[in-house]
Amino acid sequence: MLARRRFLKGAALAGAASGVAGAAGFPRPALAQGTKRLRMQMTWPRNFPGLGTGANFLAETIHSLSDGALEIEIFGAGEIVPAFETIDAVESGTLDMGHAAPYYWKGKVPATEFIAGVPFGLTASEATAWMQFGGGQELADEAYAQMNCKFFLSGCTGTQMAGWYSREMNSIDDYRGLRMRLPGLGGEVIAAAGAAVINLPAGEIGPAMASGTLDAADWISPYNDLAIGMHRSGWLYYYPGWQEPGPIMDNFINLDVWNSFTNSEKAMFETANAAANAHVYSEFLANNNAALAEMLNEHDVQMRRLTDDTLVHLAELSRDVLDNLANADPLSRRVYDSILRFRAEALPWANVAESAVMQARALDYQFSQPSGG
Amino acid sequence: MLARRRFLKGAALAGAASGVAGAAGFPRPALAQGTKRLRMQMTWPRNFPGLGTGANFLAETIHSLSDGALEIEIFGAGEIVPAFETIDAVESGTLDMGHAAPYYWKGKVPATEFIAGVPFGLTASEATAWMQFGGGQELADEAYAQMNCKFFLSGCTGTQMAGWYSREMNSIDDYRGLRMRLPGLGGEVIAAAGAAVINLPAGEIGPAMASGTLDAADWISPYNDLAIGMHRSGWLYYYPGWQEPGPIMDNFINLDVWNSFTNSEKAMFETANAAANAHVYSEFLANNNAALAEMLNEHDVQMRRLTDDTLVHLAELSRDVLDNLANADPLSRRVYDSILRFRAEALPWANVAESAVMQARALDYQFSQPSGG
Repeated sequence: MLARRRFLKGAALAGAASGVAGAAGFPRPALAQGTKRLRMQMTWPRNFPGLGTGANFLAETIHSLSDGALEIEIFGAGEIVPAFETIDAVESGTLDMGHAAPYYWKGKVPATEFIAGVPFGLTASEATAWMQFGGGQELADEAYAQMNCKFFLSGCTGTQMAGWYSREMNSIDDYRGLRMRLPGLGGEVIAAAGAAVINLPAGEIGPAMASGTLDAADWISPYNDLAIGMHRSGWLYYYPGWQEPGPIMDNFINLDVWNSFTNSEKAMFETANAAANAHVYSEFLANNNAALAEMLNEHDVQMRRLTDDTLVHLAELSRDVLDNLANADPLSRRVYDSILRFRAEALPWANVAESAVMQARALDYQFSQPSGG
Repeated sequence: MLARRRFLKGAALAGAASGVAGAAGFPRPALAQGTKRLRMQMTWPRNFPGLGTGANFLAETIHSLSDGALEIEIFGAGEIVPAFETIDAVESGTLDMGHAAPYYWKGKVPATEFIAGVPFGLTASEATAWMQFGGGQELADEAYAQMNCKFFLSGCTGTQMAGWYSREMNSIDDYRGLRMRLPGLGGEVIAAAGAAVINLPAGEIGPAMASGTLDAADWISPYNDLAIGMHRSGWLYYYPGWQEPGPIMDNFINLDVWNSFTNSEKAMFETANAAANAHVYSEFLANNNAALAEMLNEHDVQMRRLTDDTLVHLAELSRDVLDNLANADPLSRRVYDSILRFRAEALPWANVAESAVMQARALDYQFSQPSGG
């Protein structure tokens, strides 16, 4: 899982973080020769792999669709306002749009933590289907309207990993006293199992792993973990990412700005976000494929799977954490109920469809080889 | 798998098949008050669940994006030309666009059968990522350019089922003499295992199951199988759909028409197809979830899983069939090599990510219940 605090120090991680500073003076939304200029801040650095690049794709697509009439100016975390005040700035109209992850807004609207995705919940494809056909869009719009925003699903990272561990994890008891970086709901679940959760920004993870301050650490998945060098720890790389089966990103637009759009402008935002959502997931998938291959083939990373018994305990602790949160807030309860109803039908289908065919592909047989080798 | 022949008789299956007849006289592409009207024929009936509805979504999205300037007139199979002459009509300019499945064009360009998806190949999400980040789009454009068309990925059905069987399938030997409806590559594979492949249009499947003409039959997945009443056979419903882990649909546009578009019009087609691709997969996913629940809870359908040993034999027979096809045609070889290289990295990642998390979710534990019940 990503973490709020890391963005305050994390900008140096971006390959091409921008040095743009005094860009705060643009009119919003400005009309210049028929062009509407919209200002969007992210909670990540510019060009951050998968996330910032997804925002770029969104802006470029809307620019192309509108033949240049809609221009989205992208700002990295902190360039206009601090990263986690992005939605306040969009709410007030200081910014027009934001690009982030829903759980960052749980302090304002607790239901956003459920919208972001829950432990043992939906995969990327299921979360997308829930949004489109299971009532998710309507619930998310209701949640974001409380922050004067229109909501869009704007990117799925796909299933994350369970993290890096300095020692074998053989049972739920091994979480007792474990000093682990694991923000969000996952962190609450392992805290319930006795872990000491220590959330550090990305730039401090590696040193804390090396110094022994941490016994375990989660970041994202191979694409991003390789980029920040987590494989150099020599630790075991555990799966599956039970805490984040299919987390999503949001794009949110000030409601007054949204309501000022023509129908075709609204269609451009809807359609570009649908395309961006798939594009981000494809980017993560293709790059996770390649990064995992590099970890296994060149860096001799050792993979481990959490035991079934450990996973069952984590699922039951997740249930308790989620039930407590849902019962404390009416909109969270409605969002969670909607997710649970979708999940109750999605699991039996996954079991005989995508999960079953992925297991069949993984059996031991000799398949075709590329003609080149 | 869908089959060519069924469309010749299958129009009665569509819930809202149209009676439009003499619509062949429109100018193409017509300019009327600034509107470009484009004619698109499908290889399925109008409003066919998931497929025809996907074409509707595509047309409506392009209409909204262009503020009505691009109007796509949709025709069902056979309304302008016979279903499987759709691409010839687009090639020659009689039609502007088509909406179909790539394997229908294997008689013209054999590589389209690989583009459509191969047994033990990529899931819907992986196929989408291969198109965007693995070289798939470029190869598909090359294949469709041979038919004077621009290619778009325009819909994934998700993993299909292995079909309905009148008896238990316990080993690869049970395919010997089995009279089964299974078109396409899947049919070639089970023929290699000794089956007698009998391909019938959809409307004839039920009667052939009842009369004993067939011992087994594949159609699509619960959403569509329930719609045509296959669950009434009392047969066993087998999974996984090894023959079609993630088949795709195509949208193709006459190249002269495509080249006449402005950049923003091109962006509308690209973006609308990306959105349609996700929308179709979400529609199948949500409806397969619900249809499977109805089959299990209301119709007492009995599910069975093909044994690992059977699947291993089917994978090895698939390899032989695919290698033979690929080695007979240079472009097929290049497409298959590209798929195989992507697959070689996608499988290890799936094994620790989405497949692993779906297996973890399916373990035996008590999870949260919706507050309503």
